[in-house]
Amino acid sequence: MLNFNRRNFFKMNKVLSCKDLINILDKNIIKHQILDNFEILDISSLTTKKNNSVLFLDKDTNISHNNFDSILIITNEEKVFLNNKFKNILYCKNLNESWNTIVNEIYSHEDSLNYKDEFILSNNSYISKDANIDKSAKIFSNCVIGKGVEIGKNCIIKNNVVIKNSIIKDNVIICDNTSIGTTGFGFDTNKRGSSFINPQIGIVIIDDNVHIGSSCTIDRAKIDYTYIGKNSMIDNLVHIAHNVIIGENACIAAQTGISGSVVIGNNVTIGGKAGFAGHIKVGDNVVIAALSGVTKNIKDNSIVAGFPAIDIKEWKKNLIRQRNYGH
Amino acid sequence: MLNFNRRNFFKMNKVLSCKDLINILDKNIIKHQILDNFEILDISSLTTKKNNSVLFLDKDTNISHNNFDSILIITNEEKVFLNNKFKNILYCKNLNESWNTIVNEIYSHEDSLNYKDEFILSNNSYISKDANIDKSAKIFSNCVIGKGVEIGKNCIIKNNVVIKNSIIKDNVIICDNTSIGTTGFGFDTNKRGSSFINPQIGIVIIDDNVHIGSSCTIDRAKIDYTYIGKNSMIDNLVHIAHNVIIGENACIAAQTGISGSVVIGNNVTIGGKAGFAGHIKVGDNVVIAALSGVTKNIKDNSIVAGFPAIDIKEWKKNLIRQRNYGH
Amino acid sequence: MLNFNRRNFFKMNKVLSCKDLINILDKNIIKHQILDNFEILDISSLTTKKNNSVLFLDKDTNISHNNFDSILIITNEEKVFLNNKFKNILYCKNLNESWNTIVNEIYSHEDSLNYKDEFILSNNSYISKDANIDKSAKIFSNCVIGKGVEIGKNCIIKNNVVIKNSIIKDNVIICDNTSIGTTGFGFDTNKRGSSFINPQIGIVIIDDNVHIGSSCTIDRAKIDYTYIGKNSMIDNLVHIAHNVIIGENACIAAQTGISGSVVIGNNVTIGGKAGFAGHIKVGDNVVIAALSGVTKNIKDNSIVAGFPAIDIKEWKKNLIRQRNYGH
Repeated sequence: MLNFNRRNFFKMNKVLSCKDLINILDKNIIKHQILDNFEILDISSLTTKKNNSVLFLDKDTNISHNNFDSILIITNEEKVFLNNKFKNILYCKNLNESWNTIVNEIYSHEDSLNYKDEFILSNNSYISKDANIDKSAKIFSNCVIGKGVEIGKNCIIKNNVVIKNSIIKDNVIICDNTSIGTTGFGFDTNKRGSSFINPQIGIVIIDDNVHIGSSCTIDRAKIDYTYIGKNSMIDNLVHIAHNVIIGENACIAAQTGISGSVVIGNNVTIGGKAGFAGHIKVGDNVVIAALSGVTKNIKDNSIVAGFPAIDIKEWKKNLIRQRNYGH
Repeated sequence: MLNFNRRNFFKMNKVLSCKDLINILDKNIIKHQILDNFEILDISSLTTKKNNSVLFLDKDTNISHNNFDSILIITNEEKVFLNNKFKNILYCKNLNESWNTIVNEIYSHEDSLNYKDEFILSNNSYISKDANIDKSAKIFSNCVIGKGVEIGKNCIIKNNVVIKNSIIKDNVIICDNTSIGTTGFGFDTNKRGSSFINPQIGIVIIDDNVHIGSSCTIDRAKIDYTYIGKNSMIDNLVHIAHNVIIGENACIAAQTGISGSVVIGNNVTIGGKAGFAGHIKVGDNVVIAALSGVTKNIKDNSIVAGFPAIDIKEWKKNLIRQRNYGH
Repeated sequence: MLNFNRRNFFKMNKVLSCKDLINILDKNIIKHQILDNFEILDISSLTTKKNNSVLFLDKDTNISHNNFDSILIITNEEKVFLNNKFKNILYCKNLNESWNTIVNEIYSHEDSLNYKDEFILSNNSYISKDANIDKSAKIFSNCVIGKGVEIGKNCIIKNNVVIKNSIIKDNVIICDNTSIGTTGFGFDTNKRGSSFINPQIGIVIIDDNVHIGSSCTIDRAKIDYTYIGKNSMIDNLVHIAHNVIIGENACIAAQTGISGSVVIGNNVTIGGKAGFAGHIKVGDNVVIAALSGVTKNIKDNSIVAGFPAIDIKEWKKNLIRQRNYGH
């Protein structure tokens, strides 16, 4: 896992004490067992564990209880609470609501009214005072570069590009009207509306030598990062949702959309207008034909087409059969 | 129906007298019967009738002739003219051309060269002198907020957003690079070209607590309004055409496109990359799978998939049959 | 073919002598036969031949050797070299690499770090000192109009529009957040990454009376131009790739994507969300249904639907057969 300092991007409003926590979660709490002096300084995920943090668990995963002493588990599963693995644990009714309450209390982010960022108009673009842009990078006119954003060597950020909550490594080109680091589409589907959107306090990391076309949208992660691997080529109007991980050397043609938490291997080629269901895995060296709808994991070295996407030879056979049938 | 004052958004160039009207329509007129002192102050639709207005009718609908005394009917259907229901009526050759001629004469709008709007650069965004933004709302950098636009309490309008011809209610969040209130795609398909685009003099109304993602486009209505209901969640790169009405609690995933005049009920969930034919109705509590192409009305509580979209169970059966056939 | 002066858009860094050429291509050269005093002043294509230019040939086309005396052929096909048709010819290992080396040496363009353009903030938009905008044209706020761009009479360029490397003729309307003249998606698929993107030194030409919606992306050509014919109507979120040629009176609905080098005839109507494979030809008066995936050339006067797109009657019959089968 790559590291980043969340507080560069999201101002910490306060350190949450155990007492604060119980106070704000209030009736959402069923039971809890937390050391009195526990303090919350960050949020953990299963892949990135931090000391003095909260980890939200919606199922009884196989994680060992080692290294969890300095982490407070919050769960809506009684089983997780009862198995007595964790030193600090809170069992609540609605995990989604707990996330919103806690994260909104600790951090300010661009979907909260208390969010602040100060800009300087520099070469026709608004650059945050708290952005860190290499001198060799070029920022064209009408961009907005937000708080905490890092832009590496020899990057070219073209016109009307918005970059927030992101780390852009070296030699990256981002074309006109693209938005990087936007808010992921996360909410409890039973409680809709912008007031209930899950605060997204992860970032986007774009690795060296990536090319991103025009009018793309790349959402920042909920906790960790959305990642685009080295040397990847992304065409226009591509949507990449929160928590997506894309390997090296990807080629993604125009108008493709990749749903949340999809993981894509190295050297993958994706035709135009392809779509992906959330949370699936695509192996290395995969080719996905244009207009595919990928609904399941795809093995290394596969070539798939259609909706639902299947082996391209099978897909072609099906087409011929369907057309011949009845003639 | 909700109310709005068209003149807040579209400057009225002149009040059209009966004489003016006959003069500008000229050879497009076949017959007419209009009180000499009739004056045109606004445009009506079948759902929003206004005094001293024009109503364009392209077929002999079942509307009663009551309450039409102060309205001038313009039609290209001889039958409508002959049935003698209306006190003020004009029968023309080309209704589309009449619309263009009359509306362009009365109103200035952003597709006409005489359109004007004066802006102040305020906190890094261009805000029209004639916009009305609540003090609690936050407008990020590089936005354009046009004439007549209202933005309610606690709204967050992120970077490079363009809002024109729209009323945004309270607690709405609009993400980067989105365009609201843009020109609907309306024209006589036999007479193409930007000079012949139908002036669109309706607006967009976005109700409380809606969340709209990045790089979306929401077109304003031709006469009344395009409407997004309370608590609706809209992902990135979604297109919503003119006159679309979406109920409360909608959830619309990325890259979906909704064609003109579609009406969608409450609590509807739409997967990514779905498409809709124009003028269809989708009931309440409907779920539309990703990549669907919806071509017909959908009943309440349905779950549909595929193109053309059908009941999802039927769609799955078809898939299995197609794959088994011939094996 | 229409003419344009490449140097208006792309600054020429230097005239390349024969010696320079051999020096920069270096080990990529297999054999060559070039007059010593040959100088490179421009790049040719098979359709636009210029004196003292380079023409890249990846196959042994049937071109006659006439009129090629002042052109240097660069090829990766031994056959082309051996057939001895051309006075000046260079046979290289990797043609793609030759393109990148030569074009990057001669021209500066927006994907190179040495690219420069100077802007004036005029009426709330950044206009290049080297743009040429008719006085009757209206540019709204937050636009960027780049070097060499020409904008004709009575054009309306709405908010946050980016236009670079383009000629816009008269009466064109371009809506909010659209990007014109962006970098085409061209690279050697075996050598990915922004450092290896093929420099695109063509332009976009948009002919009279075209209407382009919001958040569209129209990429400039590699050598010549991407072209949109007179009176064409383009809806929102449409992607048009490099080298595409679209005839007069096109109507293209929202979210359609047209891949590189597609040629579309006159009077073509394309439904929403249609996709096109690269390099295909679509005849005159064709209608392409919404959600089609067009994979092959389409004859004049056809109506097609589906993916792969076929005659719409056949497509409808197939649908019925598939649904009836097994019932």
